[in-house]
Amino acid sequence: MTDILLSGCYGKMGRAITSYIAGCDDIRISAGLDIAEGNGDFPVFVSPFSFDGKVDAIIDFSSPAALPGLLEYAVDHKIPAVIATTGLDDAHIELIHKASKSIPVFFTANMSLGVNLVCELAKIAAKILGNSYDIEIIEAHHNQKVDAPSGTALMIADAISSELEHRPNYEYNRQAKREKRTKNEIGIHAIRGGTIVGEHEIIFAGYNEVIKISHSAASKELFAAGAVNAAVFIKDKKPGLYSMSDIVSA
Amino acid sequence: MTDILLSGCYGKMGRAITSYIAGCDDIRISAGLDIAEGNGDFPVFVSPFSFDGKVDAIIDFSSPAALPGLLEYAVDHKIPAVIATTGLDDAHIELIHKASKSIPVFFTANMSLGVNLVCELAKIAAKILGNSYDIEIIEAHHNQKVDAPSGTALMIADAISSELEHRPNYEYNRQAKREKRTKNEIGIHAIRGGTIVGEHEIIFAGYNEVIKISHSAASKELFAAGAVNAAVFIKDKKPGLYSMSDIVSA
Amino acid sequence: MTDILLSGCYGKMGRAITSYIAGCDDIRISAGLDIAEGNGDFPVFVSPFSFDGKVDAIIDFSSPAALPGLLEYAVDHKIPAVIATTGLDDAHIELIHKASKSIPVFFTANMSLGVNLVCELAKIAAKILGNSYDIEIIEAHHNQKVDAPSGTALMIADAISSELEHRPNYEYNRQAKREKRTKNEIGIHAIRGGTIVGEHEIIFAGYNEVIKISHSAASKELFAAGAVNAAVFIKDKKPGLYSMSDIVSA
Amino acid sequence: MTDILLSGCYGKMGRAITSYIAGCDDIRISAGLDIAEGNGDFPVFVSPFSFDGKVDAIIDFSSPAALPGLLEYAVDHKIPAVIATTGLDDAHIELIHKASKSIPVFFTANMSLGVNLVCELAKIAAKILGNSYDIEIIEAHHNQKVDAPSGTALMIADAISSELEHRPNYEYNRQAKREKRTKNEIGIHAIRGGTIVGEHEIIFAGYNEVIKISHSAASKELFAAGAVNAAVFIKDKKPGLYSMSDIVSA
Repeated sequence: MTDILLSGCYGKMGRAITSYIAGCDDIRISAGLDIAEGNGDFPVFVSPFSFDGKVDAIIDFSSPAALPGLLEYAVDHKIPAVIATTGLDDAHIELIHKASKSIPVFFTANMSLGVNLVCELAKIAAKILGNSYDIEIIEAHHNQKVDAPSGTALMIADAISSELEHRPNYEYNRQAKREKRTKNEIGIHAIRGGTIVGEHEIIFAGYNEVIKISHSAASKELFAAGAVNAAVFIKDKKPGLYSMSDIVSA
Repeated sequence: MTDILLSGCYGKMGRAITSYIAGCDDIRISAGLDIAEGNGDFPVFVSPFSFDGKVDAIIDFSSPAALPGLLEYAVDHKIPAVIATTGLDDAHIELIHKASKSIPVFFTANMSLGVNLVCELAKIAAKILGNSYDIEIIEAHHNQKVDAPSGTALMIADAISSELEHRPNYEYNRQAKREKRTKNEIGIHAIRGGTIVGEHEIIFAGYNEVIKISHSAASKELFAAGAVNAAVFIKDKKPGLYSMSDIVSA
Repeated sequence: MTDILLSGCYGKMGRAITSYIAGCDDIRISAGLDIAEGNGDFPVFVSPFSFDGKVDAIIDFSSPAALPGLLEYAVDHKIPAVIATTGLDDAHIELIHKASKSIPVFFTANMSLGVNLVCELAKIAAKILGNSYDIEIIEAHHNQKVDAPSGTALMIADAISSELEHRPNYEYNRQAKREKRTKNEIGIHAIRGGTIVGEHEIIFAGYNEVIKISHSAASKELFAAGAVNAAVFIKDKKPGLYSMSDIVSA
Repeated sequence: MTDILLSGCYGKMGRAITSYIAGCDDIRISAGLDIAEGNGDFPVFVSPFSFDGKVDAIIDFSSPAALPGLLEYAVDHKIPAVIATTGLDDAHIELIHKASKSIPVFFTANMSLGVNLVCELAKIAAKILGNSYDIEIIEAHHNQKVDAPSGTALMIADAISSELEHRPNYEYNRQAKREKRTKNEIGIHAIRGGTIVGEHEIIFAGYNEVIKISHSAASKELFAAGAVNAAVFIKDKKPGLYSMSDIVSA
């Protein structure tokens, strides 16, 4: 049996994980963390330091603001953590790296195996086409998402950039510029609407041809399943930073 | 025989029109206008006022900066004009309206019948869905296009807006805001890459469903044919402002 | 309170409706019909004639084989029926028309408002473009769907055909023919894979341009909501055949 | 200077190559082969055996029926050949392999670098996802194309199949079957319409997610350029069978 502390348990992803775990035999949620009010089958705390039970892993789908306290708690109590919160900045990433010196931390901008494969395929395409084709990324999410572009879009853009000779600029607003596209940029576009779960498309546009690689998620359950798999994966690992590619190659 | 004065004759669309007209029996280019150098089968002038020949219509695919002089010339000489230049601002539109009091002016942000149909379909969808679905527009063009978004994307956005209860804001840069999407906005996204001729997609995203209407142009010839048809259409018309819907219903 | 007899209650759509109605205050399922075994919060019968309770409407998402018995029961007991079963043939349609002489029957190949709008837009496009553009329909559904193409794809194809000068053939298998496409056909293509809920795209391909109109459903809940709305809509109507366009214009 | 014998010179691709080579300095067409009548700047013969000039390479975009004679001529005269004709059957492929024992033969179902990359990406995705995701291929071409599916779609299907544990069946007509999709099949769908140059999309549909990889060609010039590059590439090679991957890795 794997016991989970679920951070952000009343958010959309928190509820998706609760629902997913309800259908699993060998994993359960021991407690939740959330600043919002709600109700469920497990005790919920505002701060992790108010919780004195024992768990095998933390799954975090909360907000960037909650991350520093959560990581401090995880390091103090030596609890492996799956960090799936989006909208993080460089300071947060720094904290994650620091924590991974003491505990196993699974960190990815996107919990889906498919998205991570798409990211790998985009890297291969960028390596072959990148210096002569123009690259653009389009992502689409529901109208309640606050951060733009998505963490996954940035994850893909960074992965592509690592394959190019010159690190490109990310262009978010062509309307403000009225200039020709430079060779040294990746346009990133954030569609928002309805209940779209999550779509990412990478475009390579060249002379008379366009290559596209895309991922479409139809349900948050996809990410819930990925996060739970990740928690099971890291619970007995050594300290360090883990990602989806460790699961894929496992 | 219809004689044409082709403004912007050395630009991409100018050359597409030259090539298209070369295959027509009953229309010919008498002269061209361009500030760039080039060569062709007809005399080319920097300013229309340097040209003293007679033509039946002007086709203009040049730049916003050239528009005031061109319209002045057209009005002075009573020559019907097809204005297909993109990237115009409100002052240019004002000049076009003023000129149309004296001469026939055919003006559309996009010379394709298909694009104009897509615009009509988007209006119908907006009327039925618009107040409860989120609307986004994505356009894609080649990497040499300067204006963003395309005139056609704005034409579609304006057409949709006219069907909504409240006039929406146009959102070009979500990355700068990090806020939830408002109900009262249309996101407009400009993809730029390779030699993409012109694509426009309108997205209506609602509760668990997405409706899309799109147009894809595979060759500039499409717009050249549309502009030449428009020139033939207006050459004997009365002064006034004409558009693709006049051709469709003709 | 509206009482429902749910035919096909243990199928995928049956369960989606059960789940949807569980969240509604003014509607409930009194009984279910299914030949499969299952369990739930209401009594379930193999045949409607075994059920002697009273309901306000029937919602049918079962199989073509069950339709004749169900319609006989509905007519005998004067119960309005929403028929949403797919894969029907001409004989079934005939039965539906006959039943609608005695009771209100709501019948549509697709319970989504969006799909029905897309169908209307396709008709308009077909009227303007249909005789000079080639029309193709692509639908995609999960890998458990038996009928191909989907009833919705055929509904769209029939709607388009009604706008064309000559009734087109439906082409399902070009590989077997190795001939040029005729003007007088609509290609219909059935993608099957994974858990895809339902996608339909209509393509109008002309000279150097392509227009697409598409609908994507992200969850069966969309159709459950539509069927329940339809049941509420027809429960007090006069005998006759009703469809989504009656709701839209209501 | 590279001298070319162009087989199928009056077909669409033949003309695209003629036009492309007209803009090149170091390559020229010495003669053409075609059974149709036409006119151009070089002598054209019905049979290669009527031509007694010397060329450095043959480019063949004609028809399967012409292939045996052409290969016989190429082998007799030791002329490297680029075979880009589509719609070939196993007997033709056999002839190509046999010819490649005596002369260099460049053979690929698609002359575009982008398509060949897409094929490689699809193989990688199939290797990782193939045994648990459903795979479908959609291709779209103009309404004059006779063979269906395209040679490129089959090339991609074969490449994917080589990565799967069990060789899948290719399913072209679900309408005739009315059965659930099997795990052991790849659906292949041929859209035909207007002037579409060539589009190929591979779909991997899994549990709540869909991954797509696609290529879109906007102009036949793309393939003309690829074929001419291939001719230059093989003209001084040893006998053998060459493909786009030899150019990519060169």
